[in-house]
Amino acid sequence: MLSQKHLLGIKDLTREDLELIFQTADQFKEVINRPIKKVPSLRDITIANVFFENSTRTKLSFELAEKRLSADVINFSSSGSSVKKGETLLDTVNNILSMKVDMIVMRHSSPGAPHFLAKHIDATILNAGDGTHEHPTQAILDTYSIREKLGTVEGKKVVIVGDILHSRVALSNIFALQKLGAEVMVCGPHTLIPKYIKDLGVIVEHDLMKALKWCDVANMLRIQMERQLVKNFPSVREYSQNFGLTKEILESLDKEIVVMHPGPINRGVEITSDVADAENAIILDQVENGVATRMAALYLLAGKKDV
Amino acid sequence: MLSQKHLLGIKDLTREDLELIFQTADQFKEVINRPIKKVPSLRDITIANVFFENSTRTKLSFELAEKRLSADVINFSSSGSSVKKGETLLDTVNNILSMKVDMIVMRHSSPGAPHFLAKHIDATILNAGDGTHEHPTQAILDTYSIREKLGTVEGKKVVIVGDILHSRVALSNIFALQKLGAEVMVCGPHTLIPKYIKDLGVIVEHDLMKALKWCDVANMLRIQMERQLVKNFPSVREYSQNFGLTKEILESLDKEIVVMHPGPINRGVEITSDVADAENAIILDQVENGVATRMAALYLLAGKKDV
Amino acid sequence: MLSQKHLLGIKDLTREDLELIFQTADQFKEVINRPIKKVPSLRDITIANVFFENSTRTKLSFELAEKRLSADVINFSSSGSSVKKGETLLDTVNNILSMKVDMIVMRHSSPGAPHFLAKHIDATILNAGDGTHEHPTQAILDTYSIREKLGTVEGKKVVIVGDILHSRVALSNIFALQKLGAEVMVCGPHTLIPKYIKDLGVIVEHDLMKALKWCDVANMLRIQMERQLVKNFPSVREYSQNFGLTKEILESLDKEIVVMHPGPINRGVEITSDVADAENAIILDQVENGVATRMAALYLLAGKKDV
Repeated sequence: MLSQKHLLGIKDLTREDLELIFQTADQFKEVINRPIKKVPSLRDITIANVFFENSTRTKLSFELAEKRLSADVINFSSSGSSVKKGETLLDTVNNILSMKVDMIVMRHSSPGAPHFLAKHIDATILNAGDGTHEHPTQAILDTYSIREKLGTVEGKKVVIVGDILHSRVALSNIFALQKLGAEVMVCGPHTLIPKYIKDLGVIVEHDLMKALKWCDVANMLRIQMERQLVKNFPSVREYSQNFGLTKEILESLDKEIVVMHPGPINRGVEITSDVADAENAIILDQVENGVATRMAALYLLAGKKDV
Repeated sequence: MLSQKHLLGIKDLTREDLELIFQTADQFKEVINRPIKKVPSLRDITIANVFFENSTRTKLSFELAEKRLSADVINFSSSGSSVKKGETLLDTVNNILSMKVDMIVMRHSSPGAPHFLAKHIDATILNAGDGTHEHPTQAILDTYSIREKLGTVEGKKVVIVGDILHSRVALSNIFALQKLGAEVMVCGPHTLIPKYIKDLGVIVEHDLMKALKWCDVANMLRIQMERQLVKNFPSVREYSQNFGLTKEILESLDKEIVVMHPGPINRGVEITSDVADAENAIILDQVENGVATRMAALYLLAGKKDV
Repeated sequence: MLSQKHLLGIKDLTREDLELIFQTADQFKEVINRPIKKVPSLRDITIANVFFENSTRTKLSFELAEKRLSADVINFSSSGSSVKKGETLLDTVNNILSMKVDMIVMRHSSPGAPHFLAKHIDATILNAGDGTHEHPTQAILDTYSIREKLGTVEGKKVVIVGDILHSRVALSNIFALQKLGAEVMVCGPHTLIPKYIKDLGVIVEHDLMKALKWCDVANMLRIQMERQLVKNFPSVREYSQNFGLTKEILESLDKEIVVMHPGPINRGVEITSDVADAENAIILDQVENGVATRMAALYLLAGKKDV
């Protein structure tokens, strides 16, 4: 059993929670690699995917995870919906729940929106990203993928490169990596690394080469092009010259490091094409593991015990 | 068996039809409150939800009802569709039917659109709202919710408050309430109550306090903010001062009345937050009953007899 | 077994492939006319419908075909997706495939996009339209409908009328008809018939009456209104006067011809209403056969042998 009723953020989870999710995901990874990729585990559960922000790949991954658990799935997105008609978040969600929904997977642009809901409703909530705050299932799939590639997360050195300031992926990864015993560094331009990050016990580095020499794993965050108009945000060219990962850089290291990226990739910006397609890049494994780990999280939150 | 092949409006239904739907809905309400919320009743039926107008909650409610009956469901919405390419309504629907669809759930902005279709096609049509004309399943779920709360609709006094002129919810409710033996009053500003309403045998009242003192049930219609630019439409502030329901007003009555709202609520406009969340407000019951009554209507229209 | 792993275009198929699809579709046509319209054939297959261009009816037809084969279905459309975030086509598709998808049904505005993908990925690809290039399942359903109506395609004279220059339907139909032994003519304004069409062994005719006197079947392509602003494109009025099919024209022929249209119809432009609704128009049969033939194509591409 998980220690939490909801999955709001990695911050609330214990190491045991994460390890239970991993072990459960191991079994589901076998399931989704069989010819028949479905189990009847959640056929008594109705799940609503409530996305107040667009998110093709996260939503697709959740939907597949839910269907492969045989859950009943309904999709609610804010475009053209009653949200635009002035309804409050709580009213919208209570309406959905009145239709006998057991679990809400929610993405919202406001940090804390799922936490607010969790205080006011009975159903289980799974946070699929709340603003710049947390994105717990991304951190779970990322650390699961490191564990799969390197055997364990314990003791590994992981650098997260990019726009740490605006990234829920970074924050959730920091929490997960630390709980699992990894050492964490963040690397990026001064303007994109928040001051409070040091208080989390994270090493800060502004020189990519130094970071890469230190690490076992480099998680190259996506640069959101639309932020370029924001004050203090570097140009794409400047960013990729200083923080872009190339084959030459990788080969100049005297060791192999694992390369990760949460996608979608801007090829030639965060990483070059040859790095994205290299042997030690586990980017597509991350996507595959996203389905298995989300199945595990949904399954455990539904209070199920046997796969 | 229903007296009608289609569900185009409440006007065409008999009292026996409504009572049969209610009794069937009683059984489905038990179903959707079980752990396994599905029945195999319509597994030989394909239903197309054809929405030419956006409607998040009605569509979600129908989809859930259909899935819980194990029907095959396909969704067609007009945005980005062949409708924009100049195809006629009849051609669009005939195309969908040629794909072997048994039942059409349709929302359309033109009053009478489903009636027109019913004359030209063989499949069963369920009207999910046609312009300002009828919205039969809303009236069914509303009267079902009154019956559930008060034991019966017969003899009850129901006031519908708000913009009666532009409301399909009002018209369908008037028909359903009268067929079931309730007394009906409408209440709102002069400019929002059509002249013909008196010919329906409905009491007209412009003073909210008088209406509330008279009634057992107040159905507070949503004010559509977007209509405010229309001539003769009151401002939101003016409307809520004269027709908004507050806790103080409710407590000033020497009796309890049932408060209903079709949603989405503009909290502070039609009703205040404390009214919306009060014990005698059955707004979320209405939503829950929406799924059960729609299951009943679909089931009976499909010609099924045993739940 | 089909000679091809993918269904990229009719050009790559053999006559035997087409006939195997037809025979398989015969069986599925029986299935979709039964009360229970589903078979469990593809319950071990996950299909992603990846539409980078809007297409209501083709997408609906594929979705129904997939569901009636009991496949797991996920839908991906480009609007609001990572495609807009600068991701490459190959990265988008590889991401979807990493979620354990077996087959991709793809529509794309660029001719050759599915062929490019087929070279780089392992999953089976079914082209649902690539720009002005091919639309193989449309040609399959068209020729299947001719075979159904006339007993065979062999030896029949088929004229395709309209905007041949911009039509993937025309090109795929030409290939399919020729492989099946039909004689093919195209008919339209000079500006809408490409020079290379004669090299395909197709007769070119600019006079509709001559074409109709020659043919057994007239496939009246849709005129895309939005192209009217393009240089050399005739006005709708001019087009319908010269190439529109009316009841009078049909009755002036000393024989019955079969009338086809891929839809959506502009009534009064390509064909008049009485022609669209006439006995020898098989337009809705084409739609029905679309589901059966797509079931057959998906089934055979999945490597299945027994319906």
